[in-house]
Amino acid sequence: MPNRLKAAWQKGTATINGWQAIPSGFSAEVYARSGFDSITIDFQHGVQDYHSCLACLQGMMPSGVVPLVRVPWNEPGIVGKVLDAGAYGVICPMINSAEEAQALVQYAKYPPMGTRSNGPVRAALYAEPGAYQQTANEEILVLPMIETRKALDNLAAILDVPGIDAIYVGPSDLSFSLGKPPRMDVEDKEVLAIYESILKQTSARSIAAGIHCNAPSYARRMIEMGFRLVTVAPDVGTLLNATKAAVSAVRAA
Amino acid sequence: MPNRLKAAWQKGTATINGWQAIPSGFSAEVYARSGFDSITIDFQHGVQDYHSCLACLQGMMPSGVVPLVRVPWNEPGIVGKVLDAGAYGVICPMINSAEEAQALVQYAKYPPMGTRSNGPVRAALYAEPGAYQQTANEEILVLPMIETRKALDNLAAILDVPGIDAIYVGPSDLSFSLGKPPRMDVEDKEVLAIYESILKQTSARSIAAGIHCNAPSYARRMIEMGFRLVTVAPDVGTLLNATKAAVSAVRAA
Amino acid sequence: MPNRLKAAWQKGTATINGWQAIPSGFSAEVYARSGFDSITIDFQHGVQDYHSCLACLQGMMPSGVVPLVRVPWNEPGIVGKVLDAGAYGVICPMINSAEEAQALVQYAKYPPMGTRSNGPVRAALYAEPGAYQQTANEEILVLPMIETRKALDNLAAILDVPGIDAIYVGPSDLSFSLGKPPRMDVEDKEVLAIYESILKQTSARSIAAGIHCNAPSYARRMIEMGFRLVTVAPDVGTLLNATKAAVSAVRAA
Amino acid sequence: MPNRLKAAWQKGTATINGWQAIPSGFSAEVYARSGFDSITIDFQHGVQDYHSCLACLQGMMPSGVVPLVRVPWNEPGIVGKVLDAGAYGVICPMINSAEEAQALVQYAKYPPMGTRSNGPVRAALYAEPGAYQQTANEEILVLPMIETRKALDNLAAILDVPGIDAIYVGPSDLSFSLGKPPRMDVEDKEVLAIYESILKQTSARSIAAGIHCNAPSYARRMIEMGFRLVTVAPDVGTLLNATKAAVSAVRAA
Amino acid sequence: MPNRLKAAWQKGTATINGWQAIPSGFSAEVYARSGFDSITIDFQHGVQDYHSCLACLQGMMPSGVVPLVRVPWNEPGIVGKVLDAGAYGVICPMINSAEEAQALVQYAKYPPMGTRSNGPVRAALYAEPGAYQQTANEEILVLPMIETRKALDNLAAILDVPGIDAIYVGPSDLSFSLGKPPRMDVEDKEVLAIYESILKQTSARSIAAGIHCNAPSYARRMIEMGFRLVTVAPDVGTLLNATKAAVSAVRAA
Amino acid sequence: MPNRLKAAWQKGTATINGWQAIPSGFSAEVYARSGFDSITIDFQHGVQDYHSCLACLQGMMPSGVVPLVRVPWNEPGIVGKVLDAGAYGVICPMINSAEEAQALVQYAKYPPMGTRSNGPVRAALYAEPGAYQQTANEEILVLPMIETRKALDNLAAILDVPGIDAIYVGPSDLSFSLGKPPRMDVEDKEVLAIYESILKQTSARSIAAGIHCNAPSYARRMIEMGFRLVTVAPDVGTLLNATKAAVSAVRAA
Repeated sequence: MPNRLKAAWQKGTATINGWQAIPSGFSAEVYARSGFDSITIDFQHGVQDYHSCLACLQGMMPSGVVPLVRVPWNEPGIVGKVLDAGAYGVICPMINSAEEAQALVQYAKYPPMGTRSNGPVRAALYAEPGAYQQTANEEILVLPMIETRKALDNLAAILDVPGIDAIYVGPSDLSFSLGKPPRMDVEDKEVLAIYESILKQTSARSIAAGIHCNAPSYARRMIEMGFRLVTVAPDVGTLLNATKAAVSAVRAA
Repeated sequence: MPNRLKAAWQKGTATINGWQAIPSGFSAEVYARSGFDSITIDFQHGVQDYHSCLACLQGMMPSGVVPLVRVPWNEPGIVGKVLDAGAYGVICPMINSAEEAQALVQYAKYPPMGTRSNGPVRAALYAEPGAYQQTANEEILVLPMIETRKALDNLAAILDVPGIDAIYVGPSDLSFSLGKPPRMDVEDKEVLAIYESILKQTSARSIAAGIHCNAPSYARRMIEMGFRLVTVAPDVGTLLNATKAAVSAVRAA
Repeated sequence: MPNRLKAAWQKGTATINGWQAIPSGFSAEVYARSGFDSITIDFQHGVQDYHSCLACLQGMMPSGVVPLVRVPWNEPGIVGKVLDAGAYGVICPMINSAEEAQALVQYAKYPPMGTRSNGPVRAALYAEPGAYQQTANEEILVLPMIETRKALDNLAAILDVPGIDAIYVGPSDLSFSLGKPPRMDVEDKEVLAIYESILKQTSARSIAAGIHCNAPSYARRMIEMGFRLVTVAPDVGTLLNATKAAVSAVRAA
Repeated sequence: MPNRLKAAWQKGTATINGWQAIPSGFSAEVYARSGFDSITIDFQHGVQDYHSCLACLQGMMPSGVVPLVRVPWNEPGIVGKVLDAGAYGVICPMINSAEEAQALVQYAKYPPMGTRSNGPVRAALYAEPGAYQQTANEEILVLPMIETRKALDNLAAILDVPGIDAIYVGPSDLSFSLGKPPRMDVEDKEVLAIYESILKQTSARSIAAGIHCNAPSYARRMIEMGFRLVTVAPDVGTLLNATKAAVSAVRAA
Repeated sequence: MPNRLKAAWQKGTATINGWQAIPSGFSAEVYARSGFDSITIDFQHGVQDYHSCLACLQGMMPSGVVPLVRVPWNEPGIVGKVLDAGAYGVICPMINSAEEAQALVQYAKYPPMGTRSNGPVRAALYAEPGAYQQTANEEILVLPMIETRKALDNLAAILDVPGIDAIYVGPSDLSFSLGKPPRMDVEDKEVLAIYESILKQTSARSIAAGIHCNAPSYARRMIEMGFRLVTVAPDVGTLLNATKAAVSAVRAA
Repeated sequence: MPNRLKAAWQKGTATINGWQAIPSGFSAEVYARSGFDSITIDFQHGVQDYHSCLACLQGMMPSGVVPLVRVPWNEPGIVGKVLDAGAYGVICPMINSAEEAQALVQYAKYPPMGTRSNGPVRAALYAEPGAYQQTANEEILVLPMIETRKALDNLAAILDVPGIDAIYVGPSDLSFSLGKPPRMDVEDKEVLAIYESILKQTSARSIAAGIHCNAPSYARRMIEMGFRLVTVAPDVGTLLNATKAAVSAVRAA
C-alpha cells in the first residue's frame, strides 16, 4: 500500500493531519471518520502507551487514513516497536543535530539504509505477503521535529541527512526555546520569519514541511505559506471546546 | 455529599447532563471539565464495561460533577456493581411496567426499601467513614427510561412506584416503538404531545423528567417545556462533528 | 454491507466458521487472515469479555470476515451490547423452548419485530450513515443453539419462531444432555440420527443448520450431510496441537 | 486435583479464607502467599470483572490456594464463566428460597445434576487431560449466601436442595435485613442465636457453614462455635488499616 | 497548586511518603486515604507501567496527597511522560555523577532551565488554565537517588547541580554497592555514618534528604537524624505482612 | 529454583524454546503446555509491553517452563523491569560490540558483577524468601543476539565479556545485514558457514549458542550442527499456518 502522504507531497498537495491523545481504539475508530489524510497517535504528550497505540492503529485501519506515531523520544526500542505495530511514519521530538537525525533514520530504516531490526509483526498485515520489507524503506516516513533554537542552528545539516522525508515544526516548544511563551498558532513576527526560512530550506531539497496548528483558519494560512502537512482538530482540545460551547449554549437560556 | 441534582430539581432548576461512551478514564477527566451538572456513563449503548465505567468514575471525581450510569439492562448484578463503584444514580433502559420499576428500585435501595446488598467498596469513598449506608437511599437516584408505547400505557403505575426520583425519556427508542423512524430532537407533533403528557404526570407527583437531546437549542426548548434534566453534547457525536467541521474548514481553502 | 453468510445459505452454499477464545485484538487480526467466511467470538466459554470482544471485532474488520458472537447466556443486556459493538449475528447457548427462542429474537431485533434498543454505537460504522437501523433486522443473524434433549423435544416449536435464521448444534453439550460423554466430532449412531432429523426439520423451513466441529474431515462430512455452517480450527486447540506437534518433531531427533 | 476445602470439612477441620477486591493478578499473587486455605475473588462488591477475576485466578494458581469466586448475582451466564475460568467454587449472594438455590445448583453442575454448559476453557488446566468434566460436579463447591430474613425463613428448604456443599453467612446484609445496622463481627445476641440455629441445621445435614469475619479473634470464636470456613483479612481493609497504623506511628513522633 | 512537600521542607518539617507497586487505580484510591503526605508510584521495581501509573495518579487525586513517580531509569522519554501525566516530582534511580544529575534536571525542567517538551496533557488539570507551564519548574521536584559508592564519591558535585530539590537514599542498593547484603532499615555503623555525611552535605545546601524505610520506628529515627522525607508502609509488603499475621492469629487457635 | 536451561547446556543437551508474540496471559498458559523447555516472550517484535509480558510470565509459571524475555533494545530501564517481573534470562537484540555486551551484562547482574538495582518485586516469588538476590547472578541468563556483520566482526570480543551465558543468532536480521533477503531457516552456504564459525568460537569458550528456527526439521539440523537452544513453533505463525491448513482442507471438498 503506497503511502498517500508521500504521493500527495510529491504533487505539491497539502495534507491534513489529526492528533490523537485519547488512548482508546474505539475513539480512534470514530476520529478516523473525520476526513483526515493522516492521523498521528501522540505517544509523547498524549495519554498513549504501546498497547493503546496498537489499538488505535487497529481502530484506524478500515478508514484508510495514513497512521503516524509521534514517539516519546529518539530511542531505538520504541521507534522499532511502533513501526512493527504498523505506523507509516514516525514524528520524533527534539531533533537538534545531524547526529540525532542520522540516529533516527538508522532506527527507522532497514539495511542497508539503517539498522531497523526485521520483524514487522503487525505492519506486514498492511502489505501483500512478503512485500513489506521490500517497500518499507520507501513508504515509511521519517519526520524529525524542529522545535528548538539549536535545531534551527543545525537545520541545513539536519535536512542534508539522507532519509529525511519531511520535518515537523512544534510551535510551542520552539517559542519556549526562543524565550517566548509556549503558544500554538503563533503570530509573532520573528517566529513567522523563521517559518519562512525553514520552508525555503526544505523546499530547496524537496523535503515537505509540516506544522502543528489549532484553528482551521491558521492551518489554511500555513498551507498557503508552503507547509504540506498541517495538524488540526486534536481530539482532546476539540472535544473539550465543543462540549464547553454546547453546555454554555444551554446555560445561556 | 448530598446529590446536587436532587437539590436542584427540588428548587425547580433544570440540570445539564453529559453522556460518555468513550471507555477512557482520561477522556472522562477532560469531559468532566465542560461545565455539566452531571455526566452519565453509557454502559448500555456506549463502549463501556464495568472497569471502564469505574475508571470514568475515578476520572470525574475531582471535578465534582454528579456521576450517573445508564446500566445495560434491568439486571440486579450490574445495578449493584455500578452503585458500589460510586454512581450517584442509575438510568435504566426499557422500564415498561410497574413490576419492572419496582424491581429496579429493589435492586438500587438498601433495606428496608429494597434488597441492595451492602458493600459500597468504592462508593463509600464519597462519604464520611460509615455514613454512606445511612444516606444512600436518599441520595442515589433511580431513573427508569420511558421509551416504549407499553411504558406510556403504564406510565401512571410506573410513576406511583415509591422510590422513583425521575424518569428519563429516550426519544429514538420511543419513536421506534411508535412506528416512527428512530430520531433525536424530535419535531413530530404526536411525540411532542406525549412529552407534554409525561410532564403533566411527573410534575403532579413532584417527579423530575429528563430527556436525551442533541442540539443545545432543542435542549433549551425542552427545559422551557418543563424537563429538569437535559442531555447534550454526547462525547462521541460531539467529537466527530467538531472534527469533521474543522477538517472541512481547512479543505474549503 | 449485506451479510455474506445469509447470501451463501440462500444459495445453498456451506460456510466455514472460526472460533476465537483468545482475548486479543491482535490475535483476531491474525486469525481473520485464515480464509474463514465467518469467525465467532466465544463470549461464553472463551476467555472473552465485552471489551476483548470489541477489540476482536475491530481486529477482524479489515479482513471482511463476517463477525459473530456467542453470548454467555440468553440475557438481554449482553445481546444488545454485542450487537451494538458490531456483531453480524448472535449464537445463543441453551435455547430449549419456543419461549426462550422468542425472547432471543426480541432482544436481537429492532421494532416492530423485537425490542432491541436503538444505539448501534460501533455497529453503525459497518453501514452508510443512517442506514444501519433500516437493514439490521434483515442482516443480523439469530442462531439459537440446539444442545439439550429438551431442545430436541421442542425443536419444531423453536424453528417456527419468526426471526430464526439458523440453528447451531453444540455436540458436546448435546451428548452430555443425552447421558453420553461430552465429545466433539461424534460418531455415535443415535446422535448422527438426531443430526439427520434436525436437518430435515430445518431444511423444510429454509433455515440453515450449523454445527461445531473439530477435524476438517469431519466438517466436510457434516457439509455433505447438509449443514450450511461448520466450525473448524478453534484458535486455542489449533495453536496447542500444532505447537505440541512441532515440539515433538524436534524432540524425536 | 481434589478440592482441599471439601476434604477438610469432611474431617471437621475449619479452613481460613481470604477475600480479594483489588483487581490485579499481581496483587493476587502476593496475597496468595499469606497462608490461606482458600481465597474468594469478590466479583460482587469487589472491584472485579471477568478479566480481572481470571488474572487473579492465574496469579493464585502456583500457591495451591483453593480459588473461589463470589459471583455478582444468581445469573447463569456469569456462574458458568467463572467456573470455566477455573473457580473451584461459587459463593452466590442473596439466595432466599429453595427455587433460587436449585437454580444456582443447576447453573454450577454438569448433567445430569444440572445444566452447566460444557467448555472449561481454563478450568481444564487444573486437571489431567479429559478428567475435568468427570470430577467437576464432585469438586466444585456451591455456597449460597444466607443473608436475609427470608433466607432464614426458608433455610431448611434451601439446605435440602441436593448439591449444596456449604452455606455462607453474610453478617452485614443479614443485620441490615433484620433492621439492624449493617456490621461485621456482630455481638448482637439475636444474631448470635441465629448463627447457632444455622449451625444446628447445617451440621444435621453434614453441610459446612462459612461466615464473613474481620478480626482474627472473632474468626476464632466462630470456628469454636462450629463454622468450618471463616474469612479474615480482606485485602482492601487490611491494607488500609495496616498503612494507617504505620503512618500514625511515624506521625506520633 | 503549590507542592506541599517543598513547603514542608522549607519549614524543616519531615514528610511521610507511601510507595505503590500494585498497578491498580482503585488500590491507589484506597492507599491514598492512609494519611501520607506523598505517595510514590514505583515505576522501576513496582509492577507499574505508564497506563497503570496514570490510573494511580487519577486514583490519588481527590485525596490531595502529593504524587511522585520513581522512573525506571534516567531516560528522557519516560521522565517527560510521567510529568505530563501529573507527577509532582520524579525520583530517579542510580544517579552517580553530576553529568547524570544534570541530564535528569534537563529532562524534568522547561526552558530555560531544561529541555522538557511542552504538552502537560493531564498535568495541566492540576492547575488553573494556562498556569501550569509558569509554575512547573518551581513546583516539580527532582530527586536523584544516591545508592552507589560512585554516587557517594561524586556527592558534592551532584548536589551542586542547579535544580536538585532533594536526594533520595536507596539503602538496599547502597549496601549492595558497598559489598554488604542488600537490606532496608540498616543498622550497619559504616552505613549510618554515610547517612550522617550525606545529611551534612545536603543540609549545608538546603537540599532535603529522603530515605526508603520499612518499620515506622526506624523511619522516626531517620527523621530525628535529619531526613525530611521517609517512606514507610509500602503497599505490597504491608499487605502481605498484615495478612500473614491475621492468618497466623486464626491458625494459632 | 535452578535454571534448567543452564543445567541442560552444561550437560551438552539441546533445549527447545517457544516464542510468544500474542499479548495474553491465557494464551501463554495454553502455549506453555506444549512441551517446551523455555518460552521467550518477544517484547521486541512481538505485540508485548511490560504488563502483557508480566501476565504471560504469570500464565507460564505453573507449567515449569523457563521464562525468557527478548527485550526491545539494550536499555537499562526495561532490562531491569523484565528481570524484576520474573524473567530467567534476557535475549537482547543487536549486540554489535564488546561495549554493548558489557553494558547488557551490567544491566542484568547485581553487584559486584553489574549495576542491576535491587527490587525483584515478582521475581522473588520464584525463590525461597531472601534467596533470590544470592542466586540471581548465577541463574539469570544473558543472551546477546548476533545478527549483524558488525557483530560477526566483533564476535571474539563479545564472547570474551564475562557474564555471557549464550548467544542467540537472528537469521533474518543477519541475512539482511549481509545484503541478502531476510529469511528464516536459511540454506545459503555463506550463512551456514558463518553458523559453523560461530559454533566453533562459542564452544571453545563453553558458551551455548541458540538460533531462531521455524520448521522442526531445520531445528533438528541446527541441533545436530551444535546449537544448544532452538526456537520453533512461534505462536503467531503456528496459529496462522495451522488454521489456514484446516480451512483449506474443508474448502477442498
